Amino acid sequence: MKAMIKVTLKTGVLDPQGKAIMGSLGSLGFSGIDSVRQGKYFEVELAGNNKAAAMTQMQDMCEKLLANTVIEDYEIELA
Amino acid sequence: MKAMIKVTLKTGVLDPQGKAIMGSLGSLGFSGIDSVRQGKYFEVELAGNNKAAAMTQMQDMCEKLLANTVIEDYEIELA
Repeated sequence: MKAMIKVTLKTGVLDPQGKAIMGSLGSLGFSGIDSVRQGKYFEVELAGNNKAAAMTQMQDMCEKLLANTVIEDYEIELA
Repeated sequence: MKAMIKVTLKTGVLDPQGKAIMGSLGSLGFSGIDSVRQGKYFEVELAGNNKAAAMTQMQDMCEKLLANTVIEDYEIELA
């Protein structure tokens, strides 16, 4: 089973990396950009076919390693 | 309009960061993990409501800045 995880900064947490990207896009001539936020993305291949068990395991992984839940949110999708 | 962009390494491109995460997950006691690949995730807020124009602009941004198309694929979703 494949799990796709998006980790994004919580609303209100400053994102200097996103700001830098927005500046660079501006320098490249792109206009009409209101904001850019950068996050992380993971694809995890799991053995087994139990969706509920996989979801629990992935949540556990996010809490323990993949996301810093003080400043980040995560979103798990199974396929 | 909000664009969500996933940038992932192309199949066959080595991902040492993903390998390191997989090792760490193993050390934390997680089992049944076949592979971990890390990518990048961007959320871009765009002015205007023209979906087709936004998609073209986002593709252009990915080609020019957000993704290195030699080794990375990108996927754009508009909401």
